Amino acid sequence: MEPMKVERLVINFKTLEEFKQFKNYGNQELSMLEDLQSNIIENDSVSPFFGIYFGNALVARMSLYKVEAKYDHYFDPPQDYLELWKLEVLPDYRGKGFGKMLVDFAKSYNLPIKTNPRINSHGFWEKMGFQKAKYNMERDLGENPLIWTPEGVGEQESEATNSQNV
Amino acid sequence: MEPMKVERLVINFKTLEEFKQFKNYGNQELSMLEDLQSNIIENDSVSPFFGIYFGNALVARMSLYKVEAKYDHYFDPPQDYLELWKLEVLPDYRGKGFGKMLVDFAKSYNLPIKTNPRINSHGFWEKMGFQKAKYNMERDLGENPLIWTPEGVGEQESEATNSQNV
Repeated sequence: MEPMKVERLVINFKTLEEFKQFKNYGNQELSMLEDLQSNIIENDSVSPFFGIYFGNALVARMSLYKVEAKYDHYFDPPQDYLELWKLEVLPDYRGKGFGKMLVDFAKSYNLPIKTNPRINSHGFWEKMGFQKAKYNMERDLGENPLIWTPEGVGEQESEATNSQNV
Repeated sequence: MEPMKVERLVINFKTLEEFKQFKNYGNQELSMLEDLQSNIIENDSVSPFFGIYFGNALVARMSLYKVEAKYDHYFDPPQDYLELWKLEVLPDYRGKGFGKMLVDFAKSYNLPIKTNPRINSHGFWEKMGFQKAKYNMERDLGENPLIWTPEGVGEQESEATNSQNV
């Protein structure tokens, strides 16, 4: 068997079928399926999903997207950063370092990373070197974002004002 | 006992102590506590939290914040809308309509509402008249937002472009 590696997943019916095994399967995947069925996107389109195959089975995945510097309210100086979500390893394959492989892949872009952790996953993210962003209500609302920064990058003292008390 | 009602919660040590009973206690509450301890905010400051007291005990709460029209990527026409989060009823007080009281209170502003539901809460939100926003990856990333609209308000055909494939 080939060595395990992280690869970008293409959007096709096979991939979308494999996604059903993941607990975080949701609107995003359903929307991809509809777009594929309606020929809005082509078979084998690039996706924001990256995953790890074990033999022929997709056993871990995450979504990774680049947010442009002008929308950056987290990092100092403001810059392009990665939003990471839906990191998940199938139950039978946990404890083998697949989650870390995915996070290391994300870090290899050498851009700051932001994620919104699932409840009870803080231990994992802490081991990965992520820390809580200083909570800013106008920016974060219901989120508890965690961030990771490459050397030389700091956290913004954000004073976002896109929302207010009712 | 007085009739049950939804009231705005003030930020003080008593309220923050009561918040600890809620499962969604997180960075937001810790940040409020720090601000109070450091005299960054005053005792009894207004908060985005609304709640229901049963006798002297806070038994249900939610956070409600207004997002300005210029940041609205969900509704048509774009307008001020409410972001609702941390809706939670303490276990012993569920099934008594307190969740609905909070949502009805939010609806009484007659503004569209957006929320990001917790897993397994879709049944509740559906009963409250919320429906899934059409998933837009560039806008929603890891979220599966639900929306409610007052009469005459539609959903935006959003083409947000603040992020991109890596």
